[in-house]
Amino acid sequence: MKPNFPTEITNMVMVYDKQRDMVVIEDRTKYWKGLAFPGGHAEAGESLAESAIREVYEETGLRLNSVQACGLIHWDCADGKYMVHLYRSSDFKGKLNRQASDEGSVEWIPLEKLKSIRVYEPSRLAEYFGDYLRVFLDDGYHELYAWESDNDQQPVEFRYY
Amino acid sequence: MKPNFPTEITNMVMVYDKQRDMVVIEDRTKYWKGLAFPGGHAEAGESLAESAIREVYEETGLRLNSVQACGLIHWDCADGKYMVHLYRSSDFKGKLNRQASDEGSVEWIPLEKLKSIRVYEPSRLAEYFGDYLRVFLDDGYHELYAWESDNDQQPVEFRYY
Repeated sequence: MKPNFPTEITNMVMVYDKQRDMVVIEDRTKYWKGLAFPGGHAEAGESLAESAIREVYEETGLRLNSVQACGLIHWDCADGKYMVHLYRSSDFKGKLNRQASDEGSVEWIPLEKLKSIRVYEPSRLAEYFGDYLRVFLDDGYHELYAWESDNDQQPVEFRYY
Repeated sequence: MKPNFPTEITNMVMVYDKQRDMVVIEDRTKYWKGLAFPGGHAEAGESLAESAIREVYEETGLRLNSVQACGLIHWDCADGKYMVHLYRSSDFKGKLNRQASDEGSVEWIPLEKLKSIRVYEPSRLAEYFGDYLRVFLDDGYHELYAWESDNDQQPVEFRYY
């Protein structure tokens, strides 16, 4: 019997306007509250790139022509695994619809402002989104694995590759 | 209820000796028979990079100091998903143990010879390993999604990103 994990497979996308040096941020209100990038779950029959493009359209109204994979964040849950596939895209058309979905409102903000929030107002970010940002902002492709022991006294350990 | 797929999470590694322009090939004898690169299943509590390093050691005796993620190949199964995380590494020590595991014998072969086999003797490769090679040999990070309809008459469709 091979290891086989019930797995939630999700995506998250940094939509980046190079000319204006701005990114699309979502102010999440339902769960995992706070600032994060748009994204969601992959469905059966979809590639991960397709799922990322679909989720960005549903949550922002923007049409991505292409995405570039830039990393994977994942962790073990009590009953399986959770994976977040990270993408960057500067290749889009359409106009941002600030209230496109009920996940939370979206807006363009300067990337430098988001970096400043990470440092000076981290409580505005969704939990651990500051760690996600490291993967989005580093060059190349990186894996961030969050390992949590059964001992509640021990903090989450991040391993970065 | 969020989509949650029973998922086999695996890895495969192209160990590449830059100076000699050679790669480690495995002649698989148990299942998925034929020539392929070493690899195997990720376990709970492991990062994917760690699982790749462990599998290469178990199947070749070589110790990788680091790996570079270069792609993901995945498909939907009747009961979930199957994912193969692809890595390259030229950062190793130790000596190849040709009979390190019962998955199949391993050996160094010139990369050009493997490319020649792909073209002129494809039946020596494990099924679809020629498609895997495209991801290993392209620069950057790529996704290959294999989509199979329920209709047996329709061939597998590959989508490449």
